[in-house]
This record gives sequence, C-alpha cells and structure tokens, in this order.
Amino acid sequence: MSRLDLRHGRVEMAHGGGGRAMQQLIEALFLPHLDNPALRAGNDGAVLPGSGERLVVASDSHVITPLFFPGGDIGSLAVHGTINDVAMMGARPVALSAGFILEEGFPLADLARIVESMGRAAAAAGVPVVTGDTKVVERGKGDGVYITTSGLGLLADGIDLAGHRARPGDHVLINGSLGDHGIALLAQRDNLDFATDLRSDSAALHRLVATLLHAAPDLRCLRDPTRGGLAATLNEIAHQSAVGIRLREVAIPVKPAVHAVCELLGLDPLNIANEGKLVAICPPERSAALLAALRADPLGSEAAIIGEVVEDSGHFVQMETHFGGYRTVDWLTSEALPRIC
Amino acid sequence: MSRLDLRHGRVEMAHGGGGRAMQQLIEALFLPHLDNPALRAGNDGAVLPGSGERLVVASDSHVITPLFFPGGDIGSLAVHGTINDVAMMGARPVALSAGFILEEGFPLADLARIVESMGRAAAAAGVPVVTGDTKVVERGKGDGVYITTSGLGLLADGIDLAGHRARPGDHVLINGSLGDHGIALLAQRDNLDFATDLRSDSAALHRLVATLLHAAPDLRCLRDPTRGGLAATLNEIAHQSAVGIRLREVAIPVKPAVHAVCELLGLDPLNIANEGKLVAICPPERSAALLAALRADPLGSEAAIIGEVVEDSGHFVQMETHFGGYRTVDWLTSEALPRIC
Repeated sequence: MSRLDLRHGRVEMAHGGGGRAMQQLIEALFLPHLDNPALRAGNDGAVLPGSGERLVVASDSHVITPLFFPGGDIGSLAVHGTINDVAMMGARPVALSAGFILEEGFPLADLARIVESMGRAAAAAGVPVVTGDTKVVERGKGDGVYITTSGLGLLADGIDLAGHRARPGDHVLINGSLGDHGIALLAQRDNLDFATDLRSDSAALHRLVATLLHAAPDLRCLRDPTRGGLAATLNEIAHQSAVGIRLREVAIPVKPAVHAVCELLGLDPLNIANEGKLVAICPPERSAALLAALRADPLGSEAAIIGEVVEDSGHFVQMETHFGGYRTVDWLTSEALPRIC
Repeated sequence: MSRLDLRHGRVEMAHGGGGRAMQQLIEALFLPHLDNPALRAGNDGAVLPGSGERLVVASDSHVITPLFFPGGDIGSLAVHGTINDVAMMGARPVALSAGFILEEGFPLADLARIVESMGRAAAAAGVPVVTGDTKVVERGKGDGVYITTSGLGLLADGIDLAGHRARPGDHVLINGSLGDHGIALLAQRDNLDFATDLRSDSAALHRLVATLLHAAPDLRCLRDPTRGGLAATLNEIAHQSAVGIRLREVAIPVKPAVHAVCELLGLDPLNIANEGKLVAICPPERSAALLAALRADPLGSEAAIIGEVVEDSGHFVQMETHFGGYRTVDWLTSEALPRIC
C-alpha cells in the first residue's frame, strides 16, 4: 500500500472503512499531531487516572464555514469550545475526545492543518485528545469536516455553578468585547465583500476560570456566550433562575469594527457568537474583586461589569440604551448567522 | 412562537441557532425521551458523582445509511456502539453524551423516532445521555442525521484489557454469528433488490462483559468487531501484540442468510460490520469457563472458540478453511460497505 500523500492526497471512502487505509490515516496524520500515551495505546477508548472528585462531561459539535478563519480554524475551535464548556461548570478539563466526519474528496493537506492546529491548541491548554473516531461520507453528504469534541473535567468540592443560581442584586460581568468571532468568520465568506482586520477571539478559558474561582468561590454562574450570543445566554439564565436581567449598553464592550459590520448588515452584536468570552454572575460584594482578577489576565483585559440581576416575573433581559431608554434583549427566533460554531 | 409540529414539521436552520427555536426543539423533542437530572439541569455540561476508580472515555461517530433498519436505527446504534467501546476496556459505562448534526429539512417525526429509540436503548442499558449538542447544516451538506456519542466509564482496579496483551497459546472466542448487522443494513438500501429476514445484532454488551470479567479476571483483550469486521479487529490485535492469529473457519458462526448474500455480492463475512459482537482473547486454561459464561447469556448463546494466538513474526491472521488449506485473512485496503456504522 502506497504512502499517504499528505500534500496532494484527498479523503477517500476507504479512509473510513476500518481497514488498512484508515489505520494509515490515523498513524500518518492524526497521531503525529495529537500524540499522547492514552491515544497511542490504540484501544476502543482511553483510560485516565481516577479521582474522588465529581466528573463533568460536555459535548460540542462543530460545523463552521469557512473551516479556516483569522484567529483559528475548526480544529482549534473544537478544542477551545469544549474546554470552555467544561470550564463553565467550574471544572478542570483533563481530556478530550474527537469524532471526525469527513467528506470524500477533502484535501488531506487541509485535514493535516486542522489536526495540527487541534494538537497545538490541546498542548497549549494542557488538555490532550485521548480518543476519537473517524468516519467518511460520500461527496455531497458533508461539508469538508465536522468535528464533535467531548470533554471530561474534574470538579472540586464546594463549587456549584449553574444557570439557576442567579439572584436579584447579583452583578453580571463579561471578560471582553462581543461579536469578534462571528464577524471575523462572516468576513471570510465568499458572498460578502467587506474587509476587516478582526480576528476570532477563540481561546481556552479554563485558566481564567480557575483565577475567578480563586477570587470568588461563591460565584453563582459562568457561561460562554457562543451561539446566539450574549442575548441567548442571558435569556437562558433569566429563564433558569426565574429572574430578570438589566444591562447597560454603555458598559458593554464592542469593537468599532464589529459595530460597523453589524450596522451594515442589520445585525445586533448581542446575538453574535463568541468563542473566548465568558459571562460571570456573582453576589454584588464580589464584583470588584472579580473585575480586578479578570483585568489582570490577558484574556480579560477589557472586562466590564455590564449589568445586574433584578426581580422580574416575566424573566426579561432589558438594556438601558445609549439614549437612556430601555429595550428588551430577546433571543432570536430565527438564525442570525448559521454555521458559525 | 408556534408549537413544534412533531408530525409534519422539518428541521430548520433556526433549530441550530442557539435561540428560542433550538430551546423549543430541546424541550419538546429531546428532553421527553432522554430525561434525567443531569441533562435537565440545562448547563453547558453534566456533573456526575466521582469515584476513586480510573476513568474510561470512548467516542464514536455514526453516519449510517439507511437511518432505520431491521433491529434498530441510528439512535439505538449510537447508544450501543459507544457503550460497547467503553465496555471493551473492561469498564462499567456510567454516562453518554450525544452531538447531533442535523440536515435542514429532515422530518421532525423521524428525529423524534430516533431520539425516542436512543432514550429506550439508554434506559434499557442503564446508561443515561447526560449532555449533548445540536447543530443544523444546510440541505445538501449532511445526510439527515449524524450522531457522535461519547461514553464515560469507571474501571475497577486490577482490570487491564488491551490490544497488546495477546500471547501465543491464547484462545480467541466470539459471542455469536458474524455479519448480521452489515448485511441487514445492506438489504435496506434502495439500489439492492434482495430480501432477507436478517436483523441487525445491535446490542449493548456491558453486562455480558461484566459476566466475562467475573469468569476470567485475567482476560487479555476484548474488542467489538464493528467496521472492518472480524478481519480488521484481529489484524489490529495481531499488530499491537506482535503475534499471529490462527482461525478455524468451521468454528466461526455465520448465518446461512449472511453466507448467501456474501456469496452473491462477493463479500467476505469476516469483513462485515457487527454491532452486538465481541472478540475475547484469554489464556487457554480460561476458555472453557468463558465459553460457558458466554453461552449462559442470551447475547452469547452461539458463542464459540474460533482460533488461537500463535508466534508469527509477520503478525498474520490466517484461517484453516473448510477444505483444510490455509488462507490469509487480511484487512481490506478499500471499503467493503460504506456508511454501515
């Protein structure tokens, strides 16, 4: 059997067949970038050391288009997204799994670039990809590469973050500007003709979360405002906690470039997906310490207190606008930007 | 917002948008069938009780066509397949995650049927789906439904099953007939015109594995011969353990209907995928006890000792045929049956 042509080769149906071609793909393309003892063992699953702590499991499917964008690609995004879901529960992520659904004909060079980027992101975060699966579907039954990552984390005693724990009076914080990821991706799409220097904010937030939990162990809730943006995230929390949320538009960091594109296309930055942002809800007496902790970290240098939790039997998210009025921040019924995460 | 039309409705892009439509899909379609406290909490991940035991993680992407087949569907298959991957490590599966990639326009009634089947399979196995994700891709960028499941298991001290542990002299056992799953699926495909009563053997094997570990705690290796069939599984083990394997064709259970279809289409039952089968490799003095334990279980009533591990510097899998000669059982270079698991 010939060597895998990593420069000009393409994904073939046989690469998903469980036979020698798949073995070759794993050994020549996946293992070099993701290498670790659990993965290399080559069993049906991976074995990890135990711990008395509670376990956290999270899962995320990634179907973005385009696959490569300023600030990342589907590989780094899949690593960051799932690490963040585990981290939002207050847990320390310890391992990832990755399921690849590849379209027949996809260039192996692009696949290698994606897997290399996953490996780099996983190594930088200290969270290895320990097991996975690869399937191939016929041309026209996929879109290059879909990646579903699952993450496993360990949750220390006494930490209890959940969407139902927000209480009236609590403060709402964000670690930086909104909409960078969604707009950076949008700018790459063929049918749009605006140019921007925006980069995705895609980043692993687990170390920042550890810092926050150290500063405020009684934190109520953490969420990453990905799909649906800040609007969807806060509506979810308001719904789960049976409270209202009041935002101040002037306090919410949004880059001028994001504002400009949103105005042009009739989008709201509050609906746009982020991949390196978190919302923290905490008792009011903790917000100053949390803000200081966020701002001391490169991933939180533009952090802000953007609002507070209020009593509201309708569970509305409302925003005091630049002009002093109020408007309701609803989650979208339709899809603002498909295939963004 | 109108109620979800579970009878005539179809998947829309908005169902993947992170907004109200997605929330509605989760609450009306996913939660009723998969309900459990961890999933219902509605956080970014699920929290599970800890244990001092080692952890096992496995992941499996499912891209089968057709989605429904005699003996199961992609939902039950996704549950069984991942439970089995965890079980093959000798671990007790405790939780599953599920990532759905849905194609725009897919009937909600079919999705509900799949999720209901997942729920039933998970409940029967005692392994809940505790977290998940749903993404929607445009019409023509998917094939109805792809499901990536990950499984988490707990591994008791002293159990060490791995593909590199086979030793010359060891016996090779199987719990039943080969090829039922692949041929049952194949018979459902539009372009094929043979009729058969064959049903998929799709089943969760974790309880059978517990029985085997009780009968032979020094078991070397367990594997489920799914994609690539028995041929791929045994070649993998031979490769990892640096041994040869000698099979006896007369001892390998294959149903007459599977034989007939394989002859018709020029397929080898040893290359066909199974979803409720396991291969066990054990020291020779244990094989009688293991065979008895297998045969006492409904999932192992046709179990057999099918061969043994031998010294072979070429790491070949060979089979003594019905006619008394030997042939090499290679793994396929190309794809025998695409999209079968």
